[in-house]
Amino acid sequence: MPQAPIRIHIENNPESEPALRFTPEHLERVLAAHPDRRSRLAIIVNDDPERTAELAADAEILFAVRKPKSLGHAKRLRWVQSISAGVEGLLPLLPPGALLTNASGVHREKGGEFILAAVLMLNYAIPRFASDKEHRRWAPRFESTLRGKQAMLLGVGAIGGEGARLLKQLGVTVVGVSRSGGPREHVDESITFADIDRVLPKTAFLVSSLPLTRETQGLIDRRRLDLLPRHAGVAIVGRARVFDCDALRAKLQDETLAGAVLDVFPEEPVPPDSPFWTTPNLVMTPHCSVDDHSVYMERCVAIFSDNLGRYLARAPLRNLVDPQRGY
Amino acid sequence: MPQAPIRIHIENNPESEPALRFTPEHLERVLAAHPDRRSRLAIIVNDDPERTAELAADAEILFAVRKPKSLGHAKRLRWVQSISAGVEGLLPLLPPGALLTNASGVHREKGGEFILAAVLMLNYAIPRFASDKEHRRWAPRFESTLRGKQAMLLGVGAIGGEGARLLKQLGVTVVGVSRSGGPREHVDESITFADIDRVLPKTAFLVSSLPLTRETQGLIDRRRLDLLPRHAGVAIVGRARVFDCDALRAKLQDETLAGAVLDVFPEEPVPPDSPFWTTPNLVMTPHCSVDDHSVYMERCVAIFSDNLGRYLARAPLRNLVDPQRGY
Repeated sequence: MPQAPIRIHIENNPESEPALRFTPEHLERVLAAHPDRRSRLAIIVNDDPERTAELAADAEILFAVRKPKSLGHAKRLRWVQSISAGVEGLLPLLPPGALLTNASGVHREKGGEFILAAVLMLNYAIPRFASDKEHRRWAPRFESTLRGKQAMLLGVGAIGGEGARLLKQLGVTVVGVSRSGGPREHVDESITFADIDRVLPKTAFLVSSLPLTRETQGLIDRRRLDLLPRHAGVAIVGRARVFDCDALRAKLQDETLAGAVLDVFPEEPVPPDSPFWTTPNLVMTPHCSVDDHSVYMERCVAIFSDNLGRYLARAPLRNLVDPQRGY
Repeated sequence: MPQAPIRIHIENNPESEPALRFTPEHLERVLAAHPDRRSRLAIIVNDDPERTAELAADAEILFAVRKPKSLGHAKRLRWVQSISAGVEGLLPLLPPGALLTNASGVHREKGGEFILAAVLMLNYAIPRFASDKEHRRWAPRFESTLRGKQAMLLGVGAIGGEGARLLKQLGVTVVGVSRSGGPREHVDESITFADIDRVLPKTAFLVSSLPLTRETQGLIDRRRLDLLPRHAGVAIVGRARVFDCDALRAKLQDETLAGAVLDVFPEEPVPPDSPFWTTPNLVMTPHCSVDDHSVYMERCVAIFSDNLGRYLARAPLRNLVDPQRGY
């Protein structure tokens, strides 16, 4: 008797941008990757949220776009592939025992390039000049180049690691912060969270690509922000709640911090009455600094297809999230 | 009978920042460069504008800080070393037959790095997001990285050449525009002014480091700006009047151009009632994008000291300005 096919539910979000849809071309690519997939798999690509309860019920595998609804219905899931890198919102919804893999790595190139852009903006006082423009104030600053200045990268995964590589090309001294503190390519000094306080006073640019976990939430609190020199700048491309954002705003307001480039916020979209909109010395980008839609889904589907091969071969999955660590 | 010493007038501007003063240490460096200088030269370092007429009168050589007053008084000048790269303001004041050398090269590192910063800002819609912040508008753009996009660099001297080098590191296709159109390092396609129209429609980033000369004034007029695609951005770090700035502002306003990063303006400081302050999709920096005060005077004095050796040896000077070309 032939084995029953493995049921895969692919949930599209009809409200998301076309660039983030799983298309028939993606399906064809997944199926064509190995000859036995057409017989072993039963894949449903679901564009209709009304039918999610019915179509997801028997799924063993879920390919989940942003804000999936399947998790409340698919009780037999053994593996979920997310198209996000940060999964703090998905983890609590995961059925017990199911594996979760994320899209880590997809954001490497753009995330690293945006870190370079953010550090250059901080160095050349762009947040300050944006406020000066609003106040019709002409106040030049003849800053030196990046060479020899020090950046602390909170998180040296795919995004932070690529940022480190690009910053090194311009002569920046890079301190990388990770759980292990182990050596990393393109990082001059590798430290753990425990060493942050020692290095903050020498930091010109504090850049975070950290995910939100129990360990990182509130990591950079008011006391730590106060350890930065007044001329320092902050850039956040990971999750905002790693920082005490009220304290950060206060320091931008009273100029005990020179500037910030924030792509992420405690509440998104930032509500119209939020004080962020009027915070001076701040460049805001609307949570798009690491996502490159021209390559995004293609890369997510490549991770999924590769992991599918591993799953069928009972081999360890790539990008497996550790529920205890949270990433 | 011993030869009379050569009189050198060094004019400081007491209104300029301390970083732009010629100091006793600079004097010592110039004198120490060759043993015969102490006997052959009579150098006056003049910090007092009231005495300029008297002290500059007999000078054969002038080391001129910004906005020098000596030129109206020193009728016997044979050589003027300026600390500026752009000399369109000095040239008309130069006594007939006097040589003028500029500070070209001093701005290389910072100018190139700022070009990189400007192109990254344009690519990641920072001018747009600055306007969005003012209007409390949350509108993400999931732009791709720089790789494979095309920049046109108007001017590939020290600043433009360093910009080209840094842009190439990120995979940008660089078209360099110069008078000769001869091949340049780090430039994929080298063209003359005559070829600009052909390339503008394929240009994502138009970056100018051009000086102001008869040839460059108004070079990028309304018609040429209209040849750029709507998604293109403009950055100017040379002289503003190379562009029709009214046309440029109009295109930012009606969004037929995506954004601009302007460090220079037709009138500086930009007056309080200027329409630039309220132009949307525009990052303004106050004419400081290429000047690094931590190294500026040191480098100018090095050029001067080197040129002084050449002058005394009757050898050709470095950075000699051609009055016909204007740079």
